[in-house]
Amino acid sequence: MERKVALVGFGTIGTGVAKILFGKASELKAKTGLDISLAKICDIDVTTPRDVAVPAGVLTANVNDILRDPQIELVIELVGGTTFARDLILKALDAGKSVVTANKHLLALHGAELFERARRKGVCLAFEASVGGGIPIIASLLNGYIANRLDTIIGIVNGTCNYILTKMIGDTESYSEALAQAQERGYAEKDPTLDVGGGDSAHKLAILARLGFGVDFGYKDIYVEGIDHTELYDLHCADELGYVLKLLAIGKRTDDKLELRVNPTLLPKSHPLAGVSNVFNAVWVHGDAVGEGMQYGRGAGQMPTASAVVADVIDILMGRAGKAFADLNVYPGRTPKMAVKDVSEIETCYYLRFMAADRPGVLAEIAGALGRRGISIASVIQRGRGLAGQEVPIVMLTHRAHEGGLRQALKEVSDGKAVSKIHLLRVEQ
Amino acid sequence: MERKVALVGFGTIGTGVAKILFGKASELKAKTGLDISLAKICDIDVTTPRDVAVPAGVLTANVNDILRDPQIELVIELVGGTTFARDLILKALDAGKSVVTANKHLLALHGAELFERARRKGVCLAFEASVGGGIPIIASLLNGYIANRLDTIIGIVNGTCNYILTKMIGDTESYSEALAQAQERGYAEKDPTLDVGGGDSAHKLAILARLGFGVDFGYKDIYVEGIDHTELYDLHCADELGYVLKLLAIGKRTDDKLELRVNPTLLPKSHPLAGVSNVFNAVWVHGDAVGEGMQYGRGAGQMPTASAVVADVIDILMGRAGKAFADLNVYPGRTPKMAVKDVSEIETCYYLRFMAADRPGVLAEIAGALGRRGISIASVIQRGRGLAGQEVPIVMLTHRAHEGGLRQALKEVSDGKAVSKIHLLRVEQ
Repeated sequence: MERKVALVGFGTIGTGVAKILFGKASELKAKTGLDISLAKICDIDVTTPRDVAVPAGVLTANVNDILRDPQIELVIELVGGTTFARDLILKALDAGKSVVTANKHLLALHGAELFERARRKGVCLAFEASVGGGIPIIASLLNGYIANRLDTIIGIVNGTCNYILTKMIGDTESYSEALAQAQERGYAEKDPTLDVGGGDSAHKLAILARLGFGVDFGYKDIYVEGIDHTELYDLHCADELGYVLKLLAIGKRTDDKLELRVNPTLLPKSHPLAGVSNVFNAVWVHGDAVGEGMQYGRGAGQMPTASAVVADVIDILMGRAGKAFADLNVYPGRTPKMAVKDVSEIETCYYLRFMAADRPGVLAEIAGALGRRGISIASVIQRGRGLAGQEVPIVMLTHRAHEGGLRQALKEVSDGKAVSKIHLLRVEQ
Repeated sequence: MERKVALVGFGTIGTGVAKILFGKASELKAKTGLDISLAKICDIDVTTPRDVAVPAGVLTANVNDILRDPQIELVIELVGGTTFARDLILKALDAGKSVVTANKHLLALHGAELFERARRKGVCLAFEASVGGGIPIIASLLNGYIANRLDTIIGIVNGTCNYILTKMIGDTESYSEALAQAQERGYAEKDPTLDVGGGDSAHKLAILARLGFGVDFGYKDIYVEGIDHTELYDLHCADELGYVLKLLAIGKRTDDKLELRVNPTLLPKSHPLAGVSNVFNAVWVHGDAVGEGMQYGRGAGQMPTASAVVADVIDILMGRAGKAFADLNVYPGRTPKMAVKDVSEIETCYYLRFMAADRPGVLAEIAGALGRRGISIASVIQRGRGLAGQEVPIVMLTHRAHEGGLRQALKEVSDGKAVSKIHLLRVEQ
């Protein structure tokens, strides 16, 4: 029996999905028994040629050709954004169609509403492609790791940032040089704010943490710092100390509170995530039974993302996804709310770089301010003195400390005369 | 509604499964809606205390208490071995019960028969725990990567071997010293043959390759070399050349033939699998859409393996696994047979160490023999000469070469007088 699906949004990923569904139809049928027919493709632009042959009658600029066709049982939303896409998904669900989406922004903001609607209509909303491209991490949270209480989820989930940071340290480039390279190679948008500012990673963290921890929270409660203030000097110091700098999406769950933050973070070189370079993504989890696990792959790009979209389509049409969707109480809207720590409440290790006057007593001043808040120093790098009157960097790694207390100490230091600037990076052990 | 399951084999993993099913029953119910009751546990030893409290009436030494109880809908087989376990699984399937097993040996040898029987009875056979412990790689082959034609699957799937190799290079120990350490720490059996000889990895490769490539083959066609002849000297040379030595389970699929082998292999340090150390496992795949992907985690141990077993139990009881099992044509018995290359037919890069007389012309002799078979050398390490009359090692990396031709060349070299011994290791780029 032919199973009709439709695609809305015929851009890069949409073209990849069409390539798989048209080009591998018989292969997929042999493997899954499903006779999947991509019956309609909707886009406002139906004239620009794409890198795939589309049969006559499939392309349309009118989304109602999809929404009003009762034979189409599933809609793939690859439009992006949070306005038209939201409206489209709600309409498709209302029409009794399951939806597959890669729209992390929309899910982060309006997940509960969309899941609720799908559930009420007895259909399914699947979103493997929304996090980590071709990495089947959503399925693993819904299946492989299901017997676990996860306490930690850490992701490198933005390929643009990971490329820039890899390039900075690898090619001794400044942030802006590496960003320009990323833009030239198509790894960064013309306006890279959503990527380099950490927003995209926060969207993905919202999805991972809600599903993985089985609790809900406000998306805005995620603390977000991007990589746009990263200085090459700190990458070199980190390297010397045995660390690499990565933009991490960090989720931790204790009994009563969540810690959710996106920030540039130092990782020991021995950490499985430390070797994840260039545009690659990975998600590392820790659960009470499984211990640590990591999944690695291409987090973006046409075909890896399309691979995840088609996996969801198959999962739904086989009737497998619907079981999880109906029965698992891990989707927003079905889970309890949990409070998120303010960043001042978190406790972690810190990398601090003080730009300080090159005179006696400065180190004592800094160490004193930290010591009075019970913050102990794990290691210090102070390089040979500069020219008379020039500032010198003092780099420190602290043991675990409360960020609130640390910030007080740093305020005291910067209120003094000796230190002109302080760079703070968090460290994950 | 209470869903009754039973466990046969109350050893380390079985105890872990009982810990989860007894200890987390309410947590699992809240998450999945399933009221799972571990109604019976069968073992020949019902007296030795285990690290879990078992309710009265659950323990039994008589497997018929399970097989003849129509209320028990699922049997977890953790007995191991290929005789009693096979019989048990067939009987459970015949009684209309689904089966969850971690038994790679049995699946490697008798997979097609067991899958066939389960299918005929309309029940399900699940085996996530059989490969990679807590790593959800089976689910990913059946779901996340399903839209791909995989061409390569490479696994580090034996924690014992990985621990020994990590320890050899890390602590400058011989193979036998590292093995003794592994045995002391409980990472290796008293008789370690199945692990260090590569047999266990071959069982897992059989499962991964059949499912991932969607073709069947004879288990005996897998070429197997273990780590039991590994010399520390080669690990050091590999390190100097920028490689690490790992026991890899390698599956490659071309249009008409499979390449399936387990052997100690040099991997460039930049390869994602190269950082997988100690008892950790990982499986790396390459597919036509998804590109490269890797999954990493604890490949053995009580709770990681139990986590995978319980994930299968939930997957079956939710009705999700049954859909895949009924519809996907990737299980042995439903897939076409494909021929496996003899090892002489494979083409890869090689690491060669010649123990040679320290006299002029030896290098020319070796290089000549290789050159006549069109085998080109990528790099050579020849260390300063030893004492007069002493042998010196000559280490070479070749470019890609046919193993058949290489073996002829090596025979010619060893037929000569200059070289007393040749160590060959394959290299994966």
